[in-house]
Amino acid sequence: MRRPADAKQSRPADVFFRSRWVEPPAGVEQLDPATLAPGFRAGAAHCGLKGGGKTDVGLLVCDAPQVASSLLLTRNASAAAPIRVCRQRVDRGAVRAAVVNAGNANAETGEQGVADAWAMCERAGEELELQPSQVAVAETGVIGVPLPVDAVLGGIGEAAASLSAAGAGSFSGAILTTDRWPKSCTLRAGGVTLSAQAKGGGMIQPNMATMLCFVQTDAVVPDPAAELRAAVDASFERITVDGQMSTNDTVLLQATGEAGAPLPGGLLDAVLLQLALEIVADGEGSSRVGRIGVEGAASVAEAERVARAIANSPLVKTALFGRDPNWGRIAQAAGMALAGEDLEEIGAESIDATELGADVAEAGIGLRLDRGEGAAHVYFSDLGYEYVKINADYTT
Amino acid sequence: MRRPADAKQSRPADVFFRSRWVEPPAGVEQLDPATLAPGFRAGAAHCGLKGGGKTDVGLLVCDAPQVASSLLLTRNASAAAPIRVCRQRVDRGAVRAAVVNAGNANAETGEQGVADAWAMCERAGEELELQPSQVAVAETGVIGVPLPVDAVLGGIGEAAASLSAAGAGSFSGAILTTDRWPKSCTLRAGGVTLSAQAKGGGMIQPNMATMLCFVQTDAVVPDPAAELRAAVDASFERITVDGQMSTNDTVLLQATGEAGAPLPGGLLDAVLLQLALEIVADGEGSSRVGRIGVEGAASVAEAERVARAIANSPLVKTALFGRDPNWGRIAQAAGMALAGEDLEEIGAESIDATELGADVAEAGIGLRLDRGEGAAHVYFSDLGYEYVKINADYTT
Repeated sequence: MRRPADAKQSRPADVFFRSRWVEPPAGVEQLDPATLAPGFRAGAAHCGLKGGGKTDVGLLVCDAPQVASSLLLTRNASAAAPIRVCRQRVDRGAVRAAVVNAGNANAETGEQGVADAWAMCERAGEELELQPSQVAVAETGVIGVPLPVDAVLGGIGEAAASLSAAGAGSFSGAILTTDRWPKSCTLRAGGVTLSAQAKGGGMIQPNMATMLCFVQTDAVVPDPAAELRAAVDASFERITVDGQMSTNDTVLLQATGEAGAPLPGGLLDAVLLQLALEIVADGEGSSRVGRIGVEGAASVAEAERVARAIANSPLVKTALFGRDPNWGRIAQAAGMALAGEDLEEIGAESIDATELGADVAEAGIGLRLDRGEGAAHVYFSDLGYEYVKINADYTT
Repeated sequence: MRRPADAKQSRPADVFFRSRWVEPPAGVEQLDPATLAPGFRAGAAHCGLKGGGKTDVGLLVCDAPQVASSLLLTRNASAAAPIRVCRQRVDRGAVRAAVVNAGNANAETGEQGVADAWAMCERAGEELELQPSQVAVAETGVIGVPLPVDAVLGGIGEAAASLSAAGAGSFSGAILTTDRWPKSCTLRAGGVTLSAQAKGGGMIQPNMATMLCFVQTDAVVPDPAAELRAAVDASFERITVDGQMSTNDTVLLQATGEAGAPLPGGLLDAVLLQLALEIVADGEGSSRVGRIGVEGAASVAEAERVARAIANSPLVKTALFGRDPNWGRIAQAAGMALAGEDLEEIGAESIDATELGADVAEAGIGLRLDRGEGAAHVYFSDLGYEYVKINADYTT
């Protein structure tokens, strides 16, 4: 997962599955990531939220009326206005379209924010001849700042005018914030096509990270909620940049079924895991990615608790940054997660921290407990000067 | 809590209670912090653990045979050897002496480490004519490195030869690691004397923070375990530098009762809170201290969970460093702690983040929820470049 030399230039399709931790099914063909799965169109516009003429409004629509969809939303109790709208007013099983803006999260903006987010659904519905409840809304960017809704609504009109089956690239660009490179793919396997666009934990005028991901396919997906939940559990739910849950996280899967064939087994998992790892690699000030695998815990839940404690430990994260194979910090974090348990001492022989100190972009770290059969793993970013710079060198 | 211009020079006694969050009882007289409470002696030596001829072995003894004591130890399941020895072999209600080394934590050092820690108790017992089970042992410093036990045992002999009623200063210096200034006091109030020495979350050859604290008094303390537990709950348990629990944390209270009077109400609490705040102010790379107070939670436990999520959020900690009154990050962290709850939006009017952005050494931050009567607060350090430097710029 080495960072491309010029991160902003489009990436050759053949390197999408670049992580050694991702195993795509055999026979996957990589297409131009600007191309959407059949039956979908996307477009973008700029309305001034980002400045500099950058696109900041994206629109995505499924032209097939019988779309099956699943929409996963952040569980953060301080949810942003678009999350509240999606929770309450959008038909999450039949999302035909999505409207997105980047540059303003529309979070902590009160009732006006909710009205603004709903107005985005209404305007997109008008443009697309859909009910507002068929349109998901997602926003990312600065929080606590009122949304300049008239500009955004104008942008939606412009984005609608630009809708195209080759619009995935422009849509993918419009949803980025401070991401250093776009995160998208279009893949063909088993007679179906799957396209996906994500944005990650780059900070916006340093406020907070939000991850958004949109997945389109012409495959038959009988239970999109279950399939998406399982794939997200193994990908976006297994990463941490700074242990913080966003107010705006959103994942949308839409499937038309028009190809008449199912998704090849493992394809959705592989795509979401690769996108999740790119979000970590491109996290706030991130320079490398770690994977902590815990085995031999008393239960899966315990293994996950220990893995998360290690992945979120600033001592481990700074060691990952500094290439310091400091296994003692792993023992300390594990011991903290198991506080009060009668644990045998965790010695060096239980910990594989070699890659923590090695000059590799993806550092695998292992911890073997002797308490049972529970296993879990978590992917995480390092903590370096750049994180502090992004998050502190700013005065509102 | 502004940092002294020359932190290493001894501090005038009249500034011990320097935090605005500490309320000492009336009529407290501050004595020379080199003086121990009557009935105690302390000494120090250097045995080479720290290098540069710095003292690194400390010895503390109570000459009164009927001491009442309480010894609180880290709950970290990866506890260091001295913690294991104290848990299993030391009479925690009648600790007569304490032997401490700084520079090596004797953690993750296996059975040899436990034998070495016990040998320290035995050697101190010989020097002081006590049983080894009457001697508490505490160690702090690098982990995973075998203790050079012969050098330490020699140091104990030298420290014993230096024991003096005016030895609190040398003892306090010997237990420091990368602390920027010593943390100690000697106070007189209500006919009793209380002396205390602490060391904090400075990193040792950047490994992990450990807090140690030793408190001596000639007051009558009928239930030292309960009194110490209550004072620690309101002080050392309410601070966070990086959310990490050490393998070696130790607090010891010893009371001879020879003054025939009790501790004035609030004195122990005020001393431990001031020492705790100094540990935060002198935390790894710390430049200022925050206090997050949460009110209106559904319960005290919920208030504490929310306060800790805010205090440990790297986004809030970098905002504290950058003097950024970014209330949205507080709302986000609170929402994360309350994930899944049906929460009304936390707006700017619920959050007092003014001092987060102000140029004050102690920044008080408030969050008012509308869920009940639960309240809690946590003190925390900021996160700046120096934290990363201390913890990453090191190759083992």
